[in-house]
Amino acid sequence: MKSSVERVVEIRTPKAIMFGVGASEKLIEHIKELTNEHVLIVTDQGLVKAGVVGKIKKTISNADFKVSIFDGVKPDPNKECVYQCLNLVEAKDAKVLIGLGGGSSLDIAKVTAALRINGGKITDYVGIGKLPRKGLPTILMPTTSGTGSEVSPIAVISDPDQHTKLGIVSPNLYCDLAIVDPTLTVSCPPNITASSGMDALTHAIEIYTNRVSVQMIDTLVLESIRLAGLYLKTCVHNGEDIIARTGMALASLYAGLGLGPVNTAAVHSLAYPLGGTYDIPHGLANSILLPYVMEFNRPACKIKFAKIADALGVKGVEKEDEKAKIAVEMIVELSKEVGIPQKLREIGIPKEAIPKMAETALNVKRLIKNNPRKVTLNDAIAIYERAY
Amino acid sequence: MKSSVERVVEIRTPKAIMFGVGASEKLIEHIKELTNEHVLIVTDQGLVKAGVVGKIKKTISNADFKVSIFDGVKPDPNKECVYQCLNLVEAKDAKVLIGLGGGSSLDIAKVTAALRINGGKITDYVGIGKLPRKGLPTILMPTTSGTGSEVSPIAVISDPDQHTKLGIVSPNLYCDLAIVDPTLTVSCPPNITASSGMDALTHAIEIYTNRVSVQMIDTLVLESIRLAGLYLKTCVHNGEDIIARTGMALASLYAGLGLGPVNTAAVHSLAYPLGGTYDIPHGLANSILLPYVMEFNRPACKIKFAKIADALGVKGVEKEDEKAKIAVEMIVELSKEVGIPQKLREIGIPKEAIPKMAETALNVKRLIKNNPRKVTLNDAIAIYERAY
Repeated sequence: MKSSVERVVEIRTPKAIMFGVGASEKLIEHIKELTNEHVLIVTDQGLVKAGVVGKIKKTISNADFKVSIFDGVKPDPNKECVYQCLNLVEAKDAKVLIGLGGGSSLDIAKVTAALRINGGKITDYVGIGKLPRKGLPTILMPTTSGTGSEVSPIAVISDPDQHTKLGIVSPNLYCDLAIVDPTLTVSCPPNITASSGMDALTHAIEIYTNRVSVQMIDTLVLESIRLAGLYLKTCVHNGEDIIARTGMALASLYAGLGLGPVNTAAVHSLAYPLGGTYDIPHGLANSILLPYVMEFNRPACKIKFAKIADALGVKGVEKEDEKAKIAVEMIVELSKEVGIPQKLREIGIPKEAIPKMAETALNVKRLIKNNPRKVTLNDAIAIYERAY
Repeated sequence: MKSSVERVVEIRTPKAIMFGVGASEKLIEHIKELTNEHVLIVTDQGLVKAGVVGKIKKTISNADFKVSIFDGVKPDPNKECVYQCLNLVEAKDAKVLIGLGGGSSLDIAKVTAALRINGGKITDYVGIGKLPRKGLPTILMPTTSGTGSEVSPIAVISDPDQHTKLGIVSPNLYCDLAIVDPTLTVSCPPNITASSGMDALTHAIEIYTNRVSVQMIDTLVLESIRLAGLYLKTCVHNGEDIIARTGMALASLYAGLGLGPVNTAAVHSLAYPLGGTYDIPHGLANSILLPYVMEFNRPACKIKFAKIADALGVKGVEKEDEKAKIAVEMIVELSKEVGIPQKLREIGIPKEAIPKMAETALNVKRLIKNNPRKVTLNDAIAIYERAY
C-alpha cells in the first residue's frame, strides 16, 4: 500500500461525533452545551410527513427549548432555499441549527449557519477557504447513509443559472456535533437507501484512488468499501435490519471523514451537470456514473482496484490485473442488485446535452484535477457516451 | 466482527491533526492562528541536547514570536514538574504551550495548560470529566511513536506519595493541534523506539479487546496492530528508515485516537505501580506486562486474538483457538526482537513488592473494569508472578 510519506495531511472533524444506535437520544444534552435559546430544525417535508421531525421537535420542546422547523429543503437545493432558511433563522433569532435529513438538509443548515454570521452572499464563499468565520453552531443528524456531509467541511448548493453546483469548502463549515444514529435511517425508502449507499461507496472509491490519497485516510475508506459490500444490499431489501443499517452508517461516516482531507474526483465532476441542469439527485447521478469512470480509471489504479476487489470479498483470483477488472464488475453487479438505473438515457438526459455537460464537468476543477487519470474534454464526452 | 449496535460511541479529536513527513514545517502558520504573544515549549533536556528543541525554537523566534523553553520534564513526571512548568508559564505570561517530546512532555503541557485557566490543584481534576474548562491553547508534537497523548483527552501524572499515577480524563484536555511528523522520531534511540512502539501496540491491543470496544475504533486499532507488526522492528534496527518511522507514527496515532472513546485495560492498571513506585518508564512497564496479560485474557478474547494474529501476518493456520495462541507468541517474539526485557526481575522490582502492587493496580478502577476478563487480586498477583 502506498505510504503517506508523499504528503502532509490535515485532519479535522466536528467537535464531537456521536455514533451508534440510540445516539440521537443524546441530542438534548448537547443542545444544552450550545445554547438555551431558540433552536431551528432544517429538514424536508418527507421527513415531516414520516413523523421523524415531529418526534425530534417534541424531544426538544419537552426540554424547554423554543424550537421551529424549516421544512423547505428540496433534493439538491438551490441558493434560494438557503435565503429562505436564513430569513426564518433571522425572524426567530435561532441560535443553533439542526440539520436533519439527507445531504441536502445538512448542506442547507451548514451554509445558512455560515451566512448568518459571515453575512454576504453564497457566491462570496464558493471555492476553497473563502469563509472567514465559523457560523452559528450546527448539529447534523443524517437520515440517510450516503452524504458524509455531517463530518465534512464541504457544502454544495445548486445554481440553476450556471447549470451546475457551487461548492463551498472551508474548515469553518465543520459542524459542532454530528449525530450518526442508524435508527434514523430505518425509514429511508429502498430507492433512496440504494442511491445514497452508492453515493457513500463513490466517495470511498474516489478518495481511495485519488491522486492525493493518503494512507491515513485509505484505512478508513477501504473499510468503508468493505462495509458497503457487506451491508448495502440488505439495507435496500430489508431496511429494518439494524445491523446492516449500522454497517452502512459507518461506511458513510468513514467515507465522509475522507472528504475534507482528500475529497472526490471525476465521478463527482461528471455528476454535477446532471444535477445542476437536469435535477438528477446527487446520489443517483454518482451511482450511474461510478462504473464508467472506474472503467476509465482502471489503467491508472490497478493495485488499488485489486484491493477494492479484496475488500468486496473476491476469492480465488491472484493476478492484480484480473482483480482490478473484477472490482469494476462487482460494483456494476452491486449497483444493479440495488436497482440503480445503468444508463443516462433511462433518467431522461437528452443525448445532445453531452458536449455541454462535458464542458461543465471539466470546470469542476477542484475535483477533476485529482482524478487518478487525467480527463480531457474528449474523455469526458466518451465517458458520458458509454454511460448513455 | 462485533457490531457497534451495543453502544453509542463519542469521538472527539484535536481541532486539527497534521500528519506526515514535514508536518512540523506547518507549525508557524498554526501558532499564528492561536496567538501573537509568548509561546512556551515544554520538553526534556535530552531533546535540548539532541538539538531538536533549538531548531523548533529558532523557527518560532524567526517568525517574530517570543518563545521560552521549559526543559524540566523527566520520564513519568510527577506533580511537582507541573507546578514548576506553571510557574514559568505565569512568569512569561505564555499564551500557547507546545508539548515537544514523548508522552511525558505532552502530558505536562496538557495539565499545565489546564491549570493555568482552571486554577486549583492537580488532584482537583483527577478522574473522569472533572475539568470544567479548556486550558490554554496547546500544540503537541510527539518525538516518539507510542504515547498517543497528542490525540487523547487523557494526561497521567505520577504521584510518589500514593505510589501510583493520577489520570485526568476530560474532553477539555484535547489539544488544539497535534503535529505528528515522523521526521521528529528519527533521532529517537533504539531502546526508547522499542518501548514506545510496544506501548502503542499495547494501546491498540487493549482498545481492540476492550470490554467496551466499538467497531468504529476497532478498524483503526487493528490497522495500528498491522502497522506495528510491519514496521516496529525496522524502526528499532534502522531508525533512519522514514517509511518505517511513518508506519509507526500512524500506528501510534490510530491507537491514540482510540484512547478517548475506549481506553486501555489491565496492562495499564498493572503497569501503573511499576512506574509510580519503581520509576519504570511507562512504555517499558507496559511492554513487559503485555504478553502476560494477553495470556491471562486469551480465554475471553479468542476471536479478536485470532484477528490480531491475522493482522500480524500469520499464514496457514485455520483454527481460531490456535491463531489466538499464536497471537500471544507473536507478540512475545516481537518484544524479544526489539530488545524488551521479558521479566520484572530484570528491571529491579523486588518480588516481595508484588502483593502491594497488585492491590494498587486493582485500584486503577477506570481501566481495570474494562478488561475483557475480570481480574481479581489473586489474578493480579499471579500475573505479576508469572512475569517475575
